[in-house]
Formats: sequence, C-alpha cells, structure tokens
Amino acid sequence: MMIKKLVTYEDMGLVQWGVLDETETGVYGAIALEEAFFTPLPETLLEFIRQGNEGLLALADALEQNEKTYAVAAQPLDTVRIMAPIPHVERNIFCIGKNYADHIAEFDKTAVPELPKYPMIFTKATTSVIGPDDLIDPHKNVTSALDYEGELAVIIGKEGSDIPVGEAMDYVYGFTILNDVTARDLQANHGQWFHGKSLDTFCPMGPFLLLRDAAPDTFTVVTKVNGEVRQDATTGEFIFTIPQLIQTLSQGTTLLPGDIIATGTPSGVGVGFNPPKFIHSGDVVEISISDIGTLTNKVK
Amino acid sequence: MMIKKLVTYEDMGLVQWGVLDETETGVYGAIALEEAFFTPLPETLLEFIRQGNEGLLALADALEQNEKTYAVAAQPLDTVRIMAPIPHVERNIFCIGKNYADHIAEFDKTAVPELPKYPMIFTKATTSVIGPDDLIDPHKNVTSALDYEGELAVIIGKEGSDIPVGEAMDYVYGFTILNDVTARDLQANHGQWFHGKSLDTFCPMGPFLLLRDAAPDTFTVVTKVNGEVRQDATTGEFIFTIPQLIQTLSQGTTLLPGDIIATGTPSGVGVGFNPPKFIHSGDVVEISISDIGTLTNKVK
Repeated sequence: MMIKKLVTYEDMGLVQWGVLDETETGVYGAIALEEAFFTPLPETLLEFIRQGNEGLLALADALEQNEKTYAVAAQPLDTVRIMAPIPHVERNIFCIGKNYADHIAEFDKTAVPELPKYPMIFTKATTSVIGPDDLIDPHKNVTSALDYEGELAVIIGKEGSDIPVGEAMDYVYGFTILNDVTARDLQANHGQWFHGKSLDTFCPMGPFLLLRDAAPDTFTVVTKVNGEVRQDATTGEFIFTIPQLIQTLSQGTTLLPGDIIATGTPSGVGVGFNPPKFIHSGDVVEISISDIGTLTNKVK
Repeated sequence: MMIKKLVTYEDMGLVQWGVLDETETGVYGAIALEEAFFTPLPETLLEFIRQGNEGLLALADALEQNEKTYAVAAQPLDTVRIMAPIPHVERNIFCIGKNYADHIAEFDKTAVPELPKYPMIFTKATTSVIGPDDLIDPHKNVTSALDYEGELAVIIGKEGSDIPVGEAMDYVYGFTILNDVTARDLQANHGQWFHGKSLDTFCPMGPFLLLRDAAPDTFTVVTKVNGEVRQDATTGEFIFTIPQLIQTLSQGTTLLPGDIIATGTPSGVGVGFNPPKFIHSGDVVEISISDIGTLTNKVK
C-alpha cells in the first residue's frame, strides 16, 4: 500500500503514531510494525519526520512485509484518540497573515484594499497546540472576541535556509489542518499579534499529516460553525504561494524539520461579519481541507 | 559563598554549566562538584532552572562542602568559552516592543508620542540565539539596515498562567543581557516584526544568569558601538514593569521554566539617529547591565 497519511494518537494511555490503512478507517501503529518486522521506527512522528526518506523507506518496507504476512491488523481509528500530528512542537508555529485577497477586504472595507508586497509573519506559542476534538478554552476573563481561522498548514521536512522558490517543495514533508484561533481584542490592543494568537488551546491541529507526494496541487478549505459554512476557498487564491512563503521565511532564518507554517486564512472569519459572528461556549468549529480530512473543535 | 551568577560554557569541547566564584573570575563546574560531593546536578542550566529551589539547595550544599575541603578549584573564566545561559531555547524568545518612552519618541518624532496602553509582544526564533563573542551575521543579501537593541532579559523559573502582578516576581528565576538584533527594513516591510527580528545570529545572550535574589531593584543598561555610548538608561524608566509584563504575557498563556522575556530597548538605537547609524561588518556592540556584566558581539 502507498503511505499517504500519518497520525499521532493515544491508545490505552500510550501516545504513539502510525500510518492510515487504505480505507482510512484504521491505523497501522509504528510500535506494532516494529515488533512484528524488527524495522526500527522512532517513538514520535516528529522524530520520524526528521528521518526523512530513510524513515519512509523503512516504514514502506514494514508495510510490504505486512501485506504478505498480515501479522499486524489495522486498529480502527474510532477506538483511539487522535492527537495533533506533532503534539509537542519544539518551537512556535509560524503563521502568515493576509494571504487571501478576500480576507484582506474583510478588514479594510472602505476602499479597494492594497495587496501586501511582503507576507506578514507572526508566531503562535508552543503551549497553544491542541488536537482534534480537544476543547477550545474561550478565556472569558481575557477576551470577548473569540474568532476562528481555518488554514492549511505546511510541515517542514528538512533543515535549510535561503531556500530558492524552485527547491522549496523539497523541504515540505506534508500538510495538516490548523485553526488559528484568535482573540480579536487582544490582537488589536497589543499591535503585534503574538499575544492574541497564543492563548492556551488557540492552535488546534490535525487530524492527519498528508504526505507531500499524496497532496493535490490546490486544496479546498471549508470552515463551518455549528454546521453553517463560513469559509470556502481554495489555496489557488493564495497571494503568496507555498514556495514563496518558504523562500521568504528561510531568508537568513534556518527552518527545521517539524517546523509548521500556517498559510493564512480565507475570508469568512467571525470579525468580518456585521455584526461580528464571534464564537462562544458550545459552538463547534469544523475545518475541512480536501484530501486531509476535518478538524473539529468545540468551544468549552 | 552565596550563589549569585550561573554560566553555561564550553571547555575542551564539552558544554557544561557552573556557578561563578566570589571574585567572578572563575567558575565551579557542576560536573566537578557532582563528582567531588556526589550531589546530583543536571547536565544543563535549563534543567537546573526547572529544578527551582531544590536545585539551588543542592548546589549550595555542594559549595558548602567545597569550602571545607577545597576539593574543586574554580576554573579561570578566561580559559573557557562562555555561551548563552540557555544555548538551546525550547521555544521562541518573548520580546516587548516600546517599553521606554524615549525609544518611542525615536520612531515618532512629529509630535508628543502617545504611550502604549498595552505592551507589544512579538517573538524571536529559537535559531537566532548565539553567545557572547559569537559573530553577528549581517545577512547582507537580505538586509541593509542592521540594528542593535540592548535589553534586560528575564528568565522564567516556574510554570504558570494568569499570574497576578503581586506574585509575578516569584516566577522570575533571574536575569541576563540580550541584544535584540533587528533588520529594520524587514521589520518595516513585513508589518509583523517576527521576520526582521529572527534571522540566524540575531539573538546574542549572556554572559551570565544573575539570580533574582542577587538582583538590584533597577538595572542600568548601557550600549556601546565601537566604544561610543549609544544607549544609557535604567529599567526604572520602563513603561510596563516586569511584574506587569509577566501578568500580561501569562493571561491565558502558560509560561514555562526557561522562557525568556526581553523587556524592550531604550532610546539610542541606530535607526533613531539622523542619518541612521546602522551597524556593519567589523563593528563591535557591547551591552553592559549593572550587576550582570557585558555582552560583546562583533558583526561578521
């Protein structure tokens, strides 16, 4: 079988990772594959990403042996707790602001908004990461303007700096879904966006890591709140393409395997409506990206 | 002896940490103390910080035994390579923008500048950290407006969120010196400051970690470029005090031991002069903070 989607999950209290089966309803766990075929596989998906092609070849070898022996059965996904692909990121998430023209128009309604010449880059704290189905804390004592931002996230596969556009995709390991949850009042008050983007639970990620070679040329991004479609766009609308973002971000700054780049959100965020449609306790945000899946989180 | 300053250093290829002797010209290494007195001490200063008071008590015990036995001699500081106190930070450095009124006036010269109501918070990438005497890369292919910012940095000692002002100092482990090196053109072009602040080598730190209990109420911060005084201020001029910064940053966001908060820079940065006095290859930046020491870095 082709390796297409990887997943980090908890089963019986043990956090592990694995690869989805062809039906995408079950997972072959790395621990079970290693035990069955003596294939050395690392403990975490982050370490596996760091192994690059070598890791993927080892995993492919184990899966090939399993096709002959059926020694390892896929574990049904609905019996495990799916987590963020990298639950413990080792540095802040890189995020791009204003990468869809329609989204810029939401904030700048008075005239024909000018498109940015340079991408805006900010970060979200490591401690903001949560997984699918984890609860978003509304932090009511700090914010009264809680908003969602559905985004495609790029996961970097190898170290590099000053990466040319033409080579940038070689540095992409895969993709996942990210909700760039934002306290709009803190974002505005503090000028720089880090604080309003970094409260605990403000970075839901998952459910799967889609490998680069299995990815489509453009993704569709659809965000629903309580079932109502709020965002519906394709990454073909990006102002800055993924290779351009990697080129800019890596100019003078070393990118590391496991780095995550959230590529910006399309129009349809809560603050763009009049009156704003912020999210509140009990609301459910679902972000679906073609070929990856759906990231669902409820507000506590 | 009283434990006042901690240091991370490399000696004969081995990275280790220790405590300065009373003359502040020598260091008692943790490895040597552990071997002599069987006191368990962790491998890195970051792990030691995580141990909090327990670690400090163990270290004090080893030093007390050494005062009786002289089993461990202090190693002269000029025979080792001093590094950043935490050479491998585990997440981005938190930085405060606009925390001295005089510095705000440098950027906003047309009128009496308004003081900020809320601190601006941005981050610097983990990969930007270098140590004392390491070279600052001018990244000439990316920027032509390289600037320095001398700053007092706070090192957090224990985990916490929603920390009240009155308890904030309990979360401070100590202080060090940080140069918030900035590419002014990238800072301006990209709107959000992360990118222009995060190029490799843009975060010199050190030379010592001064423990909180050994710190003065206010520090003086003096920055020289090639011996010329450019910045000369005291932290008594802060718009937001250290407890206020910790309170704001920890509102909804969990702070972790080893987190670093750069508290903002006073007036006198290169871009504040007319014409600007940016730094170039061969220039030497020295930042001296009372009771901590001097952080010196040359531009490559």
